[in-house]
Amino acid sequence: MTSTAWHVISGGVTAPHGYDAHGVGAGIKLRGRRDLALIVSREPALVAGTLTTNKLAAAPIQLCRPILKRGKAQAIIANSGNANACTGPQGLHDARTMIHETARALRIDPHLVLVASTGVIGRPMPTRRIVAALPELAAGLNPRGSRAAAEAILTTDLVVKETAVEFAVPRPARCQGSALAPATRKVLRIGGIAKGSGMINPTMATMFAFLTTDAAITLPALRMALRQAVAHSFNAITVDGEMSTNDIVLLLANGAARNRPIQAGDSALAAFTRALTHVCETLATAIVRDGEGAGHLVTVEVRGAASAHDAQKAARTIANSLLVKTMVAGRDPNWGRVAAAVGASGAHLHPGRVAITLGGLTVFQHGQPARVNPLHLKRMFEHPEVLISVHLGAGVSHARVWTCDLTEGYIRINAKYTT
Amino acid sequence: MTSTAWHVISGGVTAPHGYDAHGVGAGIKLRGRRDLALIVSREPALVAGTLTTNKLAAAPIQLCRPILKRGKAQAIIANSGNANACTGPQGLHDARTMIHETARALRIDPHLVLVASTGVIGRPMPTRRIVAALPELAAGLNPRGSRAAAEAILTTDLVVKETAVEFAVPRPARCQGSALAPATRKVLRIGGIAKGSGMINPTMATMFAFLTTDAAITLPALRMALRQAVAHSFNAITVDGEMSTNDIVLLLANGAARNRPIQAGDSALAAFTRALTHVCETLATAIVRDGEGAGHLVTVEVRGAASAHDAQKAARTIANSLLVKTMVAGRDPNWGRVAAAVGASGAHLHPGRVAITLGGLTVFQHGQPARVNPLHLKRMFEHPEVLISVHLGAGVSHARVWTCDLTEGYIRINAKYTT
Repeated sequence: MTSTAWHVISGGVTAPHGYDAHGVGAGIKLRGRRDLALIVSREPALVAGTLTTNKLAAAPIQLCRPILKRGKAQAIIANSGNANACTGPQGLHDARTMIHETARALRIDPHLVLVASTGVIGRPMPTRRIVAALPELAAGLNPRGSRAAAEAILTTDLVVKETAVEFAVPRPARCQGSALAPATRKVLRIGGIAKGSGMINPTMATMFAFLTTDAAITLPALRMALRQAVAHSFNAITVDGEMSTNDIVLLLANGAARNRPIQAGDSALAAFTRALTHVCETLATAIVRDGEGAGHLVTVEVRGAASAHDAQKAARTIANSLLVKTMVAGRDPNWGRVAAAVGASGAHLHPGRVAITLGGLTVFQHGQPARVNPLHLKRMFEHPEVLISVHLGAGVSHARVWTCDLTEGYIRINAKYTT
Repeated sequence: MTSTAWHVISGGVTAPHGYDAHGVGAGIKLRGRRDLALIVSREPALVAGTLTTNKLAAAPIQLCRPILKRGKAQAIIANSGNANACTGPQGLHDARTMIHETARALRIDPHLVLVASTGVIGRPMPTRRIVAALPELAAGLNPRGSRAAAEAILTTDLVVKETAVEFAVPRPARCQGSALAPATRKVLRIGGIAKGSGMINPTMATMFAFLTTDAAITLPALRMALRQAVAHSFNAITVDGEMSTNDIVLLLANGAARNRPIQAGDSALAAFTRALTHVCETLATAIVRDGEGAGHLVTVEVRGAASAHDAQKAARTIANSLLVKTMVAGRDPNWGRVAAAVGASGAHLHPGRVAITLGGLTVFQHGQPARVNPLHLKRMFEHPEVLISVHLGAGVSHARVWTCDLTEGYIRINAKYTT
């Protein structure tokens, strides 16, 4: 198994070979903070991605769609401070300008430039400032620029989110048993940066994740791996069930590692997917941990569901319950709130077979409260991570969702976020 | 139309003829507060009701089901301080004891006694204290006892919720055009008390509404009227999309007004339904206004939806959005949050035809921000009631939902609510 395991390395989105990045302050946000990021592959790359399904999707999202359909890209230009959403034809024009001016600065085809924006909705883009900052941004591109780019995409996030892993590709099945030594195996890298901002973002949970890999991989395999990794990471964090106008996950694959291209069906694809899932989970849980005002990372596990859909429904209802979130914030093991959320979720369950555990301690089973020492129960809130686990007694499906607690800090941040 | 209009009267649940009520402190809650309520019709009555669909419904809910199926009842015994939910066979036994001991104290058939509980989930009922308080409670029954009963069902509510209306029944269609004077028309009354507690209740939005009328009405007509009234009132307030283990709405009709029984198809049924809807709306909006920590009553209107389902979905997504709620709390007209919620709701919409108005001022239309004076916009938060109106540009269906803002006060209350 060692050949399929990954290990964490530094360097974020520029850890994989053949990528440069940078971030500058273009004056979109106040006080000279970085707000414009650029990630560039030295060679044109394949790209897979996931875009928000919000029906009022922002202008940049609309321009990314055809690029993801073609599956080829070389650069990502991204800004914070303005979402360029609900901005009409002017917004589309502004996003197009960002693409074209970036392509011009990089001397690449504009069809290879992806654009992403986050910030306040319904405000005109300060496009002139962005265009003016592009030469400095392009000139500063460097193979250690991940952190500057990661800083430039933050909004109310407190913490920069970046990670990377390195792993060896097992050789294709048809070569197994040959005399090739492990040393000849290719080492691949996947890196990423993200922004979430908290439990939910002031502009409605906008989430960015920009991922890079130097693996050579076919487009179908790349899409398959990303879909699976996102399902277990960015789509398993909540937020509040809503999608922002600007959510975006992008994965560039430039093949700079010169491995034999990974294809659907290869065992190498499983290794790649596992490593990618780890990168995505690390970034996703970092988003939740950095939730606005958040004090605890809450993992909600649902088992024994009649279907995967039911498991998801129950887990999300618990994770989105304001009463469960405030229960964790108040360090009060009032598990009745979990029971009420489970019952309200609509998921099929057998009341007599439902079991609820908090931090590993069973509090409800056989249709009635379990004997548990309240002091032991209260102690679980001393950890920064809280596990809420529910068995529905109705089947064998399961789901896991991450969320954070709801504190007065969250309200303070969001009630005072100035338009 | 004057004959079909209603007007507000005092007396709450005992305003209709033939009802007595009372509330006492049985020691379920601390500090001698009233926590046990009794509402009794002097004659056996018909009853219609709506129970929570929560799959972990509390013991009292389970015992009310067969009574609502039969449609006959005479008394409602209700407590606050303990929900008797997730309490297993012992909970059912406790709820049955409440029914039987109430029937004994009133000397009526236990099959005519409805029971309701609200409070903490998963704690054994202090049934002995309840039984001990029943003689005092029954002895105190009186035709002005609505307020004491209304007090006894409160949990974290700050305000007692009761109302009543009086209205004249138009004569059946077959008598119209005869020489009978208006004075011979029957005057009917509908009264009610409720508890909500706030935006959502510490035990998950538990909502009680106990309604009485002295109208003579058939059971099918009574059920039809209540279903319609609830759809436009208690089912149009949110909360957070979740149902408590204990939600209950009950309507007793004892016929003490001796009118010709109202039937399905009568014009009198329309008048009855209108009056009942007003009573329910008054209690429902009182629940929202008294939201935990709430500073504003927020009315969300959605028009131009492709279907009633879509209209509801969009209205609820806006009303449940933490970002919209904190926007109102922060008095910040950041309408992008409304746009993002609408787009995320999944409701069918035409981006170019969507219009958003806040407090009557259009902020977004034709796919882009509308020109509006930000000072005028900010001024709308000076009123205790805020109107958010959205046109989806996709059809002719509409929906209205009430909610309240989300303040630090809410978190304080719910994080510190002690189990």
